[in-house]
Amino acid sequence: MVDDDVVASDAFEAAAFDAVDVIRTKRDGAALSGAEIDWVVTAFTRGLVVPEQMSALLMAVLLRGMEPHELDRWTTAMIASGERLDFTGLTRPTVDKHSTGGVGDKITLPLAPLVASLGAAVPQLSGRALGHTGGTLDKLESIPGWRADLTHAQVVRQLETVGAVVCAAGPGLVPADRLLYALRDVTGTVESIPLIASSIMSKKLAEGAGGLVLDVKTGSGAFLADRTDAEELARTMVRLGTAAGVPTTALLTDMSAPLGRTVGNALEVRESVEVLAGGGPDDVVGLTVALAVEMLRTAGLERSPDEVRRALQDGRAMDTWEAMVRAQDGDPRAPLPVARESEELRAERDGVVSALDAYEIGVAARRLGAGRARPDDVVQAGAGIEVVAPVGERVRAGDVVLRLHTDEPARFARALEAARSAVVVTEAGTDVDGSTVTGERVVAGQVLEVVRG
Amino acid sequence: MVDDDVVASDAFEAAAFDAVDVIRTKRDGAALSGAEIDWVVTAFTRGLVVPEQMSALLMAVLLRGMEPHELDRWTTAMIASGERLDFTGLTRPTVDKHSTGGVGDKITLPLAPLVASLGAAVPQLSGRALGHTGGTLDKLESIPGWRADLTHAQVVRQLETVGAVVCAAGPGLVPADRLLYALRDVTGTVESIPLIASSIMSKKLAEGAGGLVLDVKTGSGAFLADRTDAEELARTMVRLGTAAGVPTTALLTDMSAPLGRTVGNALEVRESVEVLAGGGPDDVVGLTVALAVEMLRTAGLERSPDEVRRALQDGRAMDTWEAMVRAQDGDPRAPLPVARESEELRAERDGVVSALDAYEIGVAARRLGAGRARPDDVVQAGAGIEVVAPVGERVRAGDVVLRLHTDEPARFARALEAARSAVVVTEAGTDVDGSTVTGERVVAGQVLEVVRG
Repeated sequence: MVDDDVVASDAFEAAAFDAVDVIRTKRDGAALSGAEIDWVVTAFTRGLVVPEQMSALLMAVLLRGMEPHELDRWTTAMIASGERLDFTGLTRPTVDKHSTGGVGDKITLPLAPLVASLGAAVPQLSGRALGHTGGTLDKLESIPGWRADLTHAQVVRQLETVGAVVCAAGPGLVPADRLLYALRDVTGTVESIPLIASSIMSKKLAEGAGGLVLDVKTGSGAFLADRTDAEELARTMVRLGTAAGVPTTALLTDMSAPLGRTVGNALEVRESVEVLAGGGPDDVVGLTVALAVEMLRTAGLERSPDEVRRALQDGRAMDTWEAMVRAQDGDPRAPLPVARESEELRAERDGVVSALDAYEIGVAARRLGAGRARPDDVVQAGAGIEVVAPVGERVRAGDVVLRLHTDEPARFARALEAARSAVVVTEAGTDVDGSTVTGERVVAGQVLEVVRG
Repeated sequence: MVDDDVVASDAFEAAAFDAVDVIRTKRDGAALSGAEIDWVVTAFTRGLVVPEQMSALLMAVLLRGMEPHELDRWTTAMIASGERLDFTGLTRPTVDKHSTGGVGDKITLPLAPLVASLGAAVPQLSGRALGHTGGTLDKLESIPGWRADLTHAQVVRQLETVGAVVCAAGPGLVPADRLLYALRDVTGTVESIPLIASSIMSKKLAEGAGGLVLDVKTGSGAFLADRTDAEELARTMVRLGTAAGVPTTALLTDMSAPLGRTVGNALEVRESVEVLAGGGPDDVVGLTVALAVEMLRTAGLERSPDEVRRALQDGRAMDTWEAMVRAQDGDPRAPLPVARESEELRAERDGVVSALDAYEIGVAARRLGAGRARPDDVVQAGAGIEVVAPVGERVRAGDVVLRLHTDEPARFARALEAARSAVVVTEAGTDVDGSTVTGERVVAGQVLEVVRG
């Protein structure tokens, strides 16, 4: 599938399609030809197909869908709109991970150095927070001195020497996706599984890793809360990766409650360092190990979960983490920023914490200053939420459930409003809906399903 | 339905909807609220909803449809985007006619003065040719001196004195439609019955006539070739007019072959004058009389077909025509322009002309210079086609079937190509498909169905 020559300039000039014909074909439910797809994606990126035409086409795609062969070609055309990274000179096998985004999802921070410490190279181009979910770059930027912008040469050098890089994607990577995403955001065309899949996979495939592991979240804090949708997205992306010749696996994981005990940039770095020191919350460690096992397998470096856990316990992962942070001018031993003010949210009755709704916790953290409502908002490094009493914990009325942090106390009122609606305390033995708890609870980060290519 | 206060400024400011929410609601198949419709149409007209958002919404409307109450409100909001004409001071009842457009459709020219000569006032705001169909203003502009642009006061005065006005719609009439139509044209969202119906009816209702008769064409030369689609459009428009309190009737008429014996601007004026002089081709006279009867009925001035025909034969309609042309600075007696060059298309075999495909004839006429491929093309007054041997006529090999006219002989080749593919000559007694002709043929302009409110 991945073929840089598909949209060669001559072919583009020769195939002068009419945008209206292309839109009408998809509108009427037919499949677009490969040549039509190449043309419309390229012409849009070059400004020949105007945004109002592309938004009509995107709506038609959302409502009519795309055949697998159309989606392969669409994704290939998106990749061809920009440059691709090339790691073929590396001695280590490369493998990348992508998460569809969650609340308290700091997994990349311990995972990238962990996998690198076991022999793979992990090139991870990441993004910043938007909406109710956090961004990996914002988290790392709370480390004094750390910088996200690297040249391609610096990325390659760091992969060879350290084995792990987390940095910002340059503007040359899949420009079609940047344009398409901005358009989808304002035209009600975000919620299309083919369009979501091609947006994620075009970037991941352009990054050029030899293997790919996807963490597809489902539950209230996930981009796709509905499990059926999340499963379809996982299958679609695994198919796209495999069709492109890149071994791809997806883990469908729970995002009904926040991952770990912290939500917020510096707070999550601190928790990640605990995991790298062999401690940290079970759910974060569990998901980190599950993803590491899958990434190593994909890279041809099969390890058991116990072997992987050992690299967290014996300091190998921590050494790689510190080298990775230092390579990007960060000081891994410097004290992390702390918010100036805090407030506590307490249980209103005796019972068991039966829910901490991930979406509402994410909204509360954003309102505290940990995230962004708009792309140009500035984030606070120290802002966020500590989960004092996680799901399943027995509490008495007046016990602290959440601790909220921010530099600006005026933010507490609206953050507490969201946080309060996130917390459900029920009688011991009863669930959120009042029914008797039977069987084990689903835990945040739990792997619900594995989808392989 | 027609309520100018619906989109009052205060209500608009108060109802600050989110464009993405409105798009998503329609995208997911739900009905928009009246307030959402008012807001989105007004905000688009004012530039607050950007074209890429409106085109996504239009595609969602095309694929999901609109409920009758949504379409009423959408149309009302479009009307409210501009000014409305007011004929309440007139002593005559006003009635207007609209045709969805055809090839050789010059009916407005004899019809408006005919109906006016029988006591109604006919305010007809018309358009120019685009695509394969002609435009009434282009036809009238072939009359030396005639001008299409009148002020509102001039229109009212002419309606009172002459009884009929055919002129250009001012820019203040339904600006939302102008913006929406330009967008639909480039985004593959023209072919939506609710959007077509609201485009036509918003303009017709804003023109303020007390009654309305619609000539909805079906057949190859029609905008909606398919009869089921044309019927649905007719029913939708009649419902919209009736809901707005304007008595509305639609005649579904055949457009499989050109109307009359001429296609082209001055050629059609000449044929219209023949009809006004009591002659002219049967199909043009028949449809003119049928529409006149319906318009007079709608205006409360019931007349029989014979009474209407008499006004064509005794010179009353011709007198009104001449007064109408003179009132707009035209000279009704001046010689009409004639094209410099002509070519003939001859029958290739003996037989009967069993088809003159209206669409291909329309394309041929446009290629000769009678119409426009793009809005800024210049039309030739004399260019066009004369039908020498109409459908049903017996011909011998070598007989002239069509005569083509243009000022630029370079245009003949491509025009002849389309014209040739329009003509089917079969053995006497057999139809286009080779089957035996049974029953009567459908004639161009024949009324297939009447839809009343």
